[in-house]
Amino acid sequence: MLRGLFFLMASVMVGGAALADPLPSWNDTEAKTKIIAFVEAVADPASGDYVPTSDRIAVFDNDGTLWAEQPIYFQLLYAVDRLREIAEVDPSILATDTLKAAAEGDLKTALAGGEEALLEIVMVSHSGIPVEEFFASAGEWLYAAKHTKTGLTYSAMVYQPMLELLRYLRDEGFSTYIVSGGGIHFMRAFVEDVYGIPPEKVIGSVGKSSYQVIDGVPSIMKDPGIAFIDDKAGKPVAIDHKIGKRPIFVGGNSDGDFEMLEWSTAGDGPRFGLIVHHTDAEREWSYDRESHVGRLDRGLDEAASHGWLLVDMAKDWKTVFPGN
Amino acid sequence: MLRGLFFLMASVMVGGAALADPLPSWNDTEAKTKIIAFVEAVADPASGDYVPTSDRIAVFDNDGTLWAEQPIYFQLLYAVDRLREIAEVDPSILATDTLKAAAEGDLKTALAGGEEALLEIVMVSHSGIPVEEFFASAGEWLYAAKHTKTGLTYSAMVYQPMLELLRYLRDEGFSTYIVSGGGIHFMRAFVEDVYGIPPEKVIGSVGKSSYQVIDGVPSIMKDPGIAFIDDKAGKPVAIDHKIGKRPIFVGGNSDGDFEMLEWSTAGDGPRFGLIVHHTDAEREWSYDRESHVGRLDRGLDEAASHGWLLVDMAKDWKTVFPGN
Repeated sequence: MLRGLFFLMASVMVGGAALADPLPSWNDTEAKTKIIAFVEAVADPASGDYVPTSDRIAVFDNDGTLWAEQPIYFQLLYAVDRLREIAEVDPSILATDTLKAAAEGDLKTALAGGEEALLEIVMVSHSGIPVEEFFASAGEWLYAAKHTKTGLTYSAMVYQPMLELLRYLRDEGFSTYIVSGGGIHFMRAFVEDVYGIPPEKVIGSVGKSSYQVIDGVPSIMKDPGIAFIDDKAGKPVAIDHKIGKRPIFVGGNSDGDFEMLEWSTAGDGPRFGLIVHHTDAEREWSYDRESHVGRLDRGLDEAASHGWLLVDMAKDWKTVFPGN
Repeated sequence: MLRGLFFLMASVMVGGAALADPLPSWNDTEAKTKIIAFVEAVADPASGDYVPTSDRIAVFDNDGTLWAEQPIYFQLLYAVDRLREIAEVDPSILATDTLKAAAEGDLKTALAGGEEALLEIVMVSHSGIPVEEFFASAGEWLYAAKHTKTGLTYSAMVYQPMLELLRYLRDEGFSTYIVSGGGIHFMRAFVEDVYGIPPEKVIGSVGKSSYQVIDGVPSIMKDPGIAFIDDKAGKPVAIDHKIGKRPIFVGGNSDGDFEMLEWSTAGDGPRFGLIVHHTDAEREWSYDRESHVGRLDRGLDEAASHGWLLVDMAKDWKTVFPGN
């Protein structure tokens, strides 16, 4: 009798799960079908493609993959706002033309110096502060500052279909990680609340930091300088260091994700590579080969030969941002 | 009726757990009592010291804390064996007096150059090899090579009381991490099997590595050079980078763990610091302030004022190595 009840309950639950659509914000196109077929196969002990949960590792780029990245990486916009804030108290911090231009909001001039200028702005605005304070500052900004085009807070500029994919993967026994060029402390200020990804599953670029005991209080200080850039060939290296396993599911959107996709999907057994292709000028942005952020060129050429899914945002996504 | 059965089952299970000794290889001294009191308090939702599982982070040093480290760090012994192996094929690799002495087994001469010499031996023996191959090589050594004093394989030179502590913590909802000066790839070759700690929970020193596609096969190559030394003030920095939370339980054995203990136990709420004090010349080794490995001096002086538990190996441990 007890056994019968359990069986009945189990059947109802399995039936319920099979009926519910795990990806309601995805249109019923090939993209959705392929994702679900893969996830069901690796999670089914009766399938030849079954993968134990300890190896169900999924990694995702952040900028352009889980949230937007136009007109420029959001972390840079935070850096500029923070630079202004610091300069109000101590104007001497604006010691170079790059920093002056950034504080004036003239990003075109500020970024004329390329990646070096970008790093300078991030370094100066992200250092000389204990991690906890930085975390609070970034968190406040992410939930208050608004995107000029959409009017949404930056924490809301995330892709609803990808939120569903993250949750679906976790429901099916995957561990979901971020592997992004963004800074770990900046991302940790919102990704647990918004993506359900806890701090220990956030891999990203890392500034230098040091252990300091100030007035008897031990803390981690963010220092000037970059310790590691988590981009391109750095991504598989960081995954090896932090996770120690080759992911079986990888999502990216730019050529900065190419090596991570290539390495992960070259492993034995079932593998899934996914590239978010920004094709939706109306609801989001449309860009790829020539873009100043999230440039996708080699990935576009080689996706088919590697068997990676190109997600066509305009065609495959029912909605883009949550609540729309 | 169904409800009654569930209740009965739950009672039996709780009763069983309470009766079983989670730390059978620990003597019934104050050390054991304190550990159990702490773990029960943070795991009990009715306790004022309750900590949710997401914050139940426990970190442990490895050398001298989870396994032995005498007469010298085991990873160095592996490095020397591997150096010999490489030199058999390519003698030109022994390009310096340090490397020649090491390959001849004359560690005293080889290590006369201090930390620099040690790093040279590790770097040369641990590079020019894909991570997977290194992993296999280290794994083979760990389960075959034998310690000259005990005759045990190195993988068996682990502390039974600490194995029980790791399992007990996990049973009570903790996540257990290693935070060691040892190399991550070397440790990953045995710690999942022996400690139950999966690769993504292994934090350690990191050599340089690079992503390479050789004959179409993508892999991570171990390169010469050190990327990060996970020791002393580097430990809290590494924990911040990799876990992003301050642990509530910390185990160490040397002054290399001081900052990690200090930072972790300075956090709000209940915290537990533990130092394994090597007091057992008969069953293991006896060393502290003057030791060439695992030097414990400041920790010994300040343990009491910080409220850290000094585990007296001779007095507090019923057994040292498994199976004895």
